[in-house]
Amino acid sequence: MSLLYPFRTRVYHILNADDGGQTTIERVTDWFLILLVLLNAATVVMQSVKSVDARYHPFFVGFELVSMYVFTLEYALRVWSCVEDRRYQRPWRGRLAFVLSPLALIDLLAILPFFLSVGLVDLRILRVVRLLRVLKVARYVRALHVIGHVIRRKRAELLVTLGVLGLMLLLVSSLMYIIESEAQPDKFGSIPDTMWWGVATLTTVGYGDVFPITPAGKLLSSLIAVLGLGLFAIPTGILASGFSEQLQEQHAAEAKFTFCPHCGHKL
Amino acid sequence: MSLLYPFRTRVYHILNADDGGQTTIERVTDWFLILLVLLNAATVVMQSVKSVDARYHPFFVGFELVSMYVFTLEYALRVWSCVEDRRYQRPWRGRLAFVLSPLALIDLLAILPFFLSVGLVDLRILRVVRLLRVLKVARYVRALHVIGHVIRRKRAELLVTLGVLGLMLLLVSSLMYIIESEAQPDKFGSIPDTMWWGVATLTTVGYGDVFPITPAGKLLSSLIAVLGLGLFAIPTGILASGFSEQLQEQHAAEAKFTFCPHCGHKL
Amino acid sequence: MSLLYPFRTRVYHILNADDGGQTTIERVTDWFLILLVLLNAATVVMQSVKSVDARYHPFFVGFELVSMYVFTLEYALRVWSCVEDRRYQRPWRGRLAFVLSPLALIDLLAILPFFLSVGLVDLRILRVVRLLRVLKVARYVRALHVIGHVIRRKRAELLVTLGVLGLMLLLVSSLMYIIESEAQPDKFGSIPDTMWWGVATLTTVGYGDVFPITPAGKLLSSLIAVLGLGLFAIPTGILASGFSEQLQEQHAAEAKFTFCPHCGHKL
Amino acid sequence: MSLLYPFRTRVYHILNADDGGQTTIERVTDWFLILLVLLNAATVVMQSVKSVDARYHPFFVGFELVSMYVFTLEYALRVWSCVEDRRYQRPWRGRLAFVLSPLALIDLLAILPFFLSVGLVDLRILRVVRLLRVLKVARYVRALHVIGHVIRRKRAELLVTLGVLGLMLLLVSSLMYIIESEAQPDKFGSIPDTMWWGVATLTTVGYGDVFPITPAGKLLSSLIAVLGLGLFAIPTGILASGFSEQLQEQHAAEAKFTFCPHCGHKL
Repeated sequence: MSLLYPFRTRVYHILNADDGGQTTIERVTDWFLILLVLLNAATVVMQSVKSVDARYHPFFVGFELVSMYVFTLEYALRVWSCVEDRRYQRPWRGRLAFVLSPLALIDLLAILPFFLSVGLVDLRILRVVRLLRVLKVARYVRALHVIGHVIRRKRAELLVTLGVLGLMLLLVSSLMYIIESEAQPDKFGSIPDTMWWGVATLTTVGYGDVFPITPAGKLLSSLIAVLGLGLFAIPTGILASGFSEQLQEQHAAEAKFTFCPHCGHKL
Repeated sequence: MSLLYPFRTRVYHILNADDGGQTTIERVTDWFLILLVLLNAATVVMQSVKSVDARYHPFFVGFELVSMYVFTLEYALRVWSCVEDRRYQRPWRGRLAFVLSPLALIDLLAILPFFLSVGLVDLRILRVVRLLRVLKVARYVRALHVIGHVIRRKRAELLVTLGVLGLMLLLVSSLMYIIESEAQPDKFGSIPDTMWWGVATLTTVGYGDVFPITPAGKLLSSLIAVLGLGLFAIPTGILASGFSEQLQEQHAAEAKFTFCPHCGHKL
Repeated sequence: MSLLYPFRTRVYHILNADDGGQTTIERVTDWFLILLVLLNAATVVMQSVKSVDARYHPFFVGFELVSMYVFTLEYALRVWSCVEDRRYQRPWRGRLAFVLSPLALIDLLAILPFFLSVGLVDLRILRVVRLLRVLKVARYVRALHVIGHVIRRKRAELLVTLGVLGLMLLLVSSLMYIIESEAQPDKFGSIPDTMWWGVATLTTVGYGDVFPITPAGKLLSSLIAVLGLGLFAIPTGILASGFSEQLQEQHAAEAKFTFCPHCGHKL
Repeated sequence: MSLLYPFRTRVYHILNADDGGQTTIERVTDWFLILLVLLNAATVVMQSVKSVDARYHPFFVGFELVSMYVFTLEYALRVWSCVEDRRYQRPWRGRLAFVLSPLALIDLLAILPFFLSVGLVDLRILRVVRLLRVLKVARYVRALHVIGHVIRRKRAELLVTLGVLGLMLLLVSSLMYIIESEAQPDKFGSIPDTMWWGVATLTTVGYGDVFPITPAGKLLSSLIAVLGLGLFAIPTGILASGFSEQLQEQHAAEAKFTFCPHCGHKL
């Protein structure tokens, strides 16, 4: 193990390049993997188009094979080297904890379907989940930090709004079910069915596949549409004030140590 | 009455656990009732799906029976013990006032249909109204307080926006009725009918069941859609500034031990 | 004229009760006229429903006749007494200026159709325009003042956004016309026709009567829908900052003369 | 060249009147060109309506011919005189740089189709692109400056939101493709096809041509609609705080002659 140690450390740092070290090889590996993820996503999208798949099928299969080898190797190396991380330093328990961490699960979810999809339902499309890995780049994007920070800060308010939305949806759909189910038993035939209308109305998507036809139903629908817009004004307002707060704190932090340039007193 | 008094006080505190006292029995009763409300709502939803109801009908009937006993008992105990509350301390007038209070009416509305629905229209679905009781939990959720506070504070502005919206809807629908009723007498045949289009357009739901087909109607519809979006920007703006105001006051309250820069006294 | 003068002054004050004087008769007249306007609007709405009109036609006709007498009398009295107002004090020029003022034009528009609609197109529905008069009540509603003030203050920004929206609509519709007119000549047959799609997409109403079916058209439509939402975020942001500004100025005005309670220095 | 120089300078200043000089001829040329651009746009729109084109075809052709001569002359004069601008002062390289500048490309795009469209696809509609030139007027509109400034300032945050939106769209559409493609192979037959649903749902346009019919698809669609609204609350919040920030800086700039409370010096 003493001989392996330095090599494992190096592998660990290469695979976790965004953590600090920024040698050429680390950066190249990082961008190579991100590029491969993006190309894989593009392949998944293109392969879903029958005509394109029919034409380039061998190429897609080959590319998938190669990238799966790379991703599987990456995954194996990650699990092997994760013990370099303090949080996962215990050989067995640490590795298990790492395997169960969100990012590692995403990686597993992206390669597992490939090995399982022999004759079964084709789950290879799950590779697209790997796209979530691209979010890693987020680490370099300051603007995303700000947005993430504001959302996290206002988490409680946003979740509560979501809760009220859910409650409202349930109440409104039950009411609509009573009103409309007789006139349109195929579309408002049960409360879960009616909820599909409820979401479409509250969010103002309004696909147009379900809508009330009775006067009472139309009245309720109108009220709900207005209420829905009001309800969605709340998170917007919360976020707006959150961004303002964030900005003010930033300015305050920048202006913390200002002094009068004439007499030197702190202002 | 002297012997009953302590017991009634205890019942009162158990049923109004959120008011202060937090013994184990109070908390258990509180959460048991909330759970029963949620399960009842789930039952109502599931029972509305014919296939599920056909299969588990006896279970649903039994569960409803039991919960109705519990809710009726709860209601009776609430009416009986409400005189412990200062606001309702007079035996007759106080109890009547309590029965007519919003929360008690919700409770009554939730159990009454059960007793009335023998052969009549099945109103038992109104049990779902009990969900509003869940809002009681809101008392523990600080974020909901903030939102509620901001909305209450901006009540006047929000109501006025609603009023303007209503006025606009009436005017616009009358105009559209003149323009479009000849081309589509089945959809724009009267002003109330046209209002259904008006709401769908102003709120941008746009189900697609009614829309103008004449050039003039399309022009008016376009103007209204843009106006509608502008109109809904107003409450959003109001709420955003309301949340900002709330935050600033909070910060100000936290910073309230500041001193006069001239004499050094606490302000 | 000397004998008429005091009477005319009184009439003027009664009809413009919201300007200052608040005797019982002034308030009664004010509310009576507002009620009559609202009832007239309700009548217009109900009369548009054929079945209701068939049943209560004589009543509607009678009510309309009476209210038209009242409104005509009110209009005549207003024109006659308007010279009491400083702005309109010259007998001929002043009265002409008054007749051409927006509120007086609304009043005229509301009674004129009644006298013109003999055999011609039935324009009596224009009575609904009178509803705009209800906005007079706005004078008493402080919240509407605040909203109006903020909108007026941000007028330039809001109009500019509208202008950009219009320009965008023209460009996007022309582009869509090139892309889609061949595939759907009935729906995207000309640029004005395509604009109907443009508005529905930019405002996210999406009735669903027109939508692109070619891949290029769908791509453009997607971009426009996202752009549209972004475009409407601008006025919302403008109004939000406008309301915040308003609030801050109000607070500043309230706090203008605060002094340190200990040493009396202005803070 | 010495003789030509003063004339070229004059031409340059006339064509770039908004840059500073404001003699009568400069202003007249400026407004004449803007008017011609607007009339050209109006012509393009009207010509797209078959019935109007059939009637006024010769007039449209004539007007187009004249304006193309004017625009071509304008373009030639701009290219010729652009060397007066410091950035483009080198005869060949400078002119090339000018020709490749965005505004010059718009001008070229607007006249080129006219010369190319002999028998080929009719691209003359591209003249409408010239409308972008109208944005030049923006230089005089202060409100547009403010909006543009705020957007530029929040560029990073807005772009990041767009990026997250794109990522989300890809993930969600892939998931929906798995869920729904079997039930509706014609509408959810490939991931790019499914993206059309994704955009319509995330932006709440909801045309209604594609929507899920399976319970799982409806559930995902509901989640996405709510998420979409939340996602669009972010740029609104960002812009709102941006406008507030802008206002505060402006106020601060106006109040910049404040004095130090300790020594009385101007700060």
